[in-house]
Amino acid sequence: MSSFKTIEWKDNRVIMIDQTKLPNEEVYFQCQTYEDVADAIKRMVIRGAPAIGVAAAMGIALGAIKIETSDRDIFFGEVHKITDVLLATRPTAVNLFWAAKRMLRVLNEQQGDIEGIKRRLVLEANNILLEDIEICRNIGRVGAELIEDNSVVLTHCNAGALATGGYGTALGVIRGAVEAGKNIKVLATETRPFLQGARLTAWELDKDGISVSLITDNMVGHIMSRGMVDAVVLGADRIAKNGDVANKIGTYSISVLAKSHGIPFYVAAPISTIDYDCPDGNSIPIEERNINEVTHILGNRIAPDVNVYNPAFDITPSENVSSIITEKAVVGEPFTEGLSELIK
Amino acid sequence: MSSFKTIEWKDNRVIMIDQTKLPNEEVYFQCQTYEDVADAIKRMVIRGAPAIGVAAAMGIALGAIKIETSDRDIFFGEVHKITDVLLATRPTAVNLFWAAKRMLRVLNEQQGDIEGIKRRLVLEANNILLEDIEICRNIGRVGAELIEDNSVVLTHCNAGALATGGYGTALGVIRGAVEAGKNIKVLATETRPFLQGARLTAWELDKDGISVSLITDNMVGHIMSRGMVDAVVLGADRIAKNGDVANKIGTYSISVLAKSHGIPFYVAAPISTIDYDCPDGNSIPIEERNINEVTHILGNRIAPDVNVYNPAFDITPSENVSSIITEKAVVGEPFTEGLSELIK
Repeated sequence: MSSFKTIEWKDNRVIMIDQTKLPNEEVYFQCQTYEDVADAIKRMVIRGAPAIGVAAAMGIALGAIKIETSDRDIFFGEVHKITDVLLATRPTAVNLFWAAKRMLRVLNEQQGDIEGIKRRLVLEANNILLEDIEICRNIGRVGAELIEDNSVVLTHCNAGALATGGYGTALGVIRGAVEAGKNIKVLATETRPFLQGARLTAWELDKDGISVSLITDNMVGHIMSRGMVDAVVLGADRIAKNGDVANKIGTYSISVLAKSHGIPFYVAAPISTIDYDCPDGNSIPIEERNINEVTHILGNRIAPDVNVYNPAFDITPSENVSSIITEKAVVGEPFTEGLSELIK
Repeated sequence: MSSFKTIEWKDNRVIMIDQTKLPNEEVYFQCQTYEDVADAIKRMVIRGAPAIGVAAAMGIALGAIKIETSDRDIFFGEVHKITDVLLATRPTAVNLFWAAKRMLRVLNEQQGDIEGIKRRLVLEANNILLEDIEICRNIGRVGAELIEDNSVVLTHCNAGALATGGYGTALGVIRGAVEAGKNIKVLATETRPFLQGARLTAWELDKDGISVSLITDNMVGHIMSRGMVDAVVLGADRIAKNGDVANKIGTYSISVLAKSHGIPFYVAAPISTIDYDCPDGNSIPIEERNINEVTHILGNRIAPDVNVYNPAFDITPSENVSSIITEKAVVGEPFTEGLSELIK
């Protein structure tokens, strides 16, 4: 388990480690309202597909308990409005939609009084957190078997405890392998523009005593060509029915490089990341973020005022993916069949 | 021609635009001594293989004119010492060695008095600068023919006017195509860790009115997969006899991505960048630079204190190179034969 808490519900507040401040400061952001949670997701105080699912669920619960009405219709309407605000924060990760759907299902199933429904929503959000941690532990256990002893594993962005309720997906696989007694070294790409690899993955692994080396994103090919990478393990923000993977920008480049060097490329994600309504990668919306993320680093301008692209994600076609590691099983080709098996 | 001077000899000083300060400040670094020049090369106040060749030559001339002796042997010994200091600044770019060799040849050929030799060395350094600009113009003219009208050209690092005496190699090809009336848009990778793309290429092209869009290094695959790149043109720090190319870290990754998307990959460099004594890429020393370049940006820490790799260059094997554009001709497969033709 990781030695810090990514997100927790405490005294009717949602408390998150502020990921915009890491690694220089370990401070916690307190959400008093659902608007605070929406703001935190947008500003990437919390990020990572599973973690923002948990945050959205807690945001809905936090919004719900503050509604002052004894009219069920008004209450239900307000909860839906709160949910819409949270759903509008970020478009790519499917976990946000999955968590919101689950909260609304709980809402709709409740027959009791409003106070009871409020308690039930808080419980559900906390259950989503606990289940997420359990799911990540299972991903770690399932995935660890793919990682050989004395391996160097390259990962991108942060699919760690910080991106989930705790433990992590890709870093869950690494934690699982380490807990299984294997000697694992991690290579973390810094992951421009938001530097999740440098700021978060390096911090989280170092804090938990797992060997980590940092490289810039453009070193991946060189490092692979020198035989210094045994496997790639990274997360996913959404997986289409056919196995195409939306993940942090740069994932696709790494998949092409891994393929050209014969290095296995593993995607670790909970089943909730699989969007069975999405036929393939082309149907996944790609978030374009503010260009200041590219032209500025920590508030300092690094480029003149020119045109900039800033897609936050890219699509890796399933033919570049060796296996998808979920909490239930490892899925390989043919992905459409394998992924559909998971929910039978 | 570019609208600024990368390096010039003026009143027995060497003046360089300070590339560590761009794009936020356009200030000029004045070298009073050869030690100042060596320091400027090391700190990357000036960088780019052809430009550091010019700088080294001017550094030798600057050192030479300040030697106070009438003894030829002492004078020759001192010039050799100065040359050794300048050669020890950076190991990968061959132009440094080429320029130093040329200066020492001039030194050894001189029969006259010491003052005459000093004047001859200053003249030679200035000739190297003028020739470099002329060579880049020819690279531009030769290479422009490979670039189709209405193209988007991706470039990496800065192989521009700032990397040469003026005009540029890769950006020389782009300037040549623009001067030939073609409509060219440039995609510049930011080029971590030193951000030459964001800081220098974007600045230089924008200043000269050439359309440029900035991306992070890890967006290259995504952008290529969307059909948004027609050609890659970049520079070289050293080219082996067989056509293997040492260039800025990240070049190799781009070459693999270009190949996998069927996009032509051009290397633009003067013949002085070809090291005919070097059989292949494995024989080229790769400079490892200070890890602070990775863990800090503009003096601000972005990563915890973990292990870091910082190779400044990588090797692109000739099979990933479509053509090498020199001032004399475009060279394609077989490279060994084509490159040896250039010096016949």
